[in-house]
Amino acid sequence: MNLHGKRIILASGSPRRRELLKGLDIDFTVDTGNSFTESVPEGTPYDQVPVLMSEGKSAGFHRPLEDNEILITADTMVILPPSEGRGGEILGKPRDAEDAARMLRDLSGRKHHVTTAVTIRSNALKDTFTATTEVWFKPLSEDEISYYIDTYKPFDKAGAYAIQEWIGHIGITRIEGSYFNVVGFPVQRVWEHLQAFL
Amino acid sequence: MNLHGKRIILASGSPRRRELLKGLDIDFTVDTGNSFTESVPEGTPYDQVPVLMSEGKSAGFHRPLEDNEILITADTMVILPPSEGRGGEILGKPRDAEDAARMLRDLSGRKHHVTTAVTIRSNALKDTFTATTEVWFKPLSEDEISYYIDTYKPFDKAGAYAIQEWIGHIGITRIEGSYFNVVGFPVQRVWEHLQAFL
Repeated sequence: MNLHGKRIILASGSPRRRELLKGLDIDFTVDTGNSFTESVPEGTPYDQVPVLMSEGKSAGFHRPLEDNEILITADTMVILPPSEGRGGEILGKPRDAEDAARMLRDLSGRKHHVTTAVTIRSNALKDTFTATTEVWFKPLSEDEISYYIDTYKPFDKAGAYAIQEWIGHIGITRIEGSYFNVVGFPVQRVWEHLQAFL
Repeated sequence: MNLHGKRIILASGSPRRRELLKGLDIDFTVDTGNSFTESVPEGTPYDQVPVLMSEGKSAGFHRPLEDNEILITADTMVILPPSEGRGGEILGKPRDAEDAARMLRDLSGRKHHVTTAVTIRSNALKDTFTATTEVWFKPLSEDEISYYIDTYKPFDKAGAYAIQEWIGHIGITRIEGSYFNVVGFPVQRVWEHLQAFL
């Protein structure tokens, strides 16, 4: 695909994001040099957290952009919506196997949201947008939860799961929205928003 | 995963179905020997077509099953639902580039359905079920359509597209249902229905 002389930089260390961006058949480089500390002000509404994180990563890029460069940053979050008297909760990366099991029990038999915020920035323009996908898990048995944690060790995954792994094959009954967003990058929306930068 | 001494046979030549079944972490063999001729009676309602095809493939398996064997067959169909005075239509594999372009123009900017019927059969039991996913394409440009056909040559794909290829990355805005079903095999439903056979 013709980038009209523009150079795209993906500022993310995630191999999944890299694969998904490759799926757009565009050339890009990966540069994760960043001074941003991953934190947001206390009390930030949770749907705003990925937006602040993505913009923070963009602003914290380790050097000024050249005029023909386009920087892409992103942040993905697994969110348990409020239900039955429980408040909403952001599920981060699990600390250990017990924490992962707690998260999977929380996700079992109900719907959650996966929200990704993406920031595209050049010296002329900045655009931040979010994509949300709803994801339904069937009721997971304790056997299924412990098999998954023991075998796939999902300690680097927000919410303690990856949809493209075993647990996504046996446990996810339905999604509404973009599948690739759940993997970690809403590439269709990126493609659409990128056009204004080319 | 423990199959309690049962042997699973996947009667499908599709490498995508093989990969998806592998995702369940179960052992199986592939055996495509089949005497079924892929046709259904004239006038079959189109939501029944994959059911008849899947059952036909199961019945046409080239040899009797042993008592510990479980046979899995499937058929996936891309269906344009009736809209704006047009009747519904099943999109098969495109004959050539012009036919593929016609199909992609038909899918462009609207919703379609992907329905897979799966038949699981042993000597004791038979179970056929279907899974349907709704899929939305953005309006596709003629440039996007011809780039995809020239580069990916989707002539072996029903509806002239594969969601996991470039066109799925740039063009599919949303799905409702199972993603893996659109790739060709609703593995979560297979997992669920398989339990009764083990």
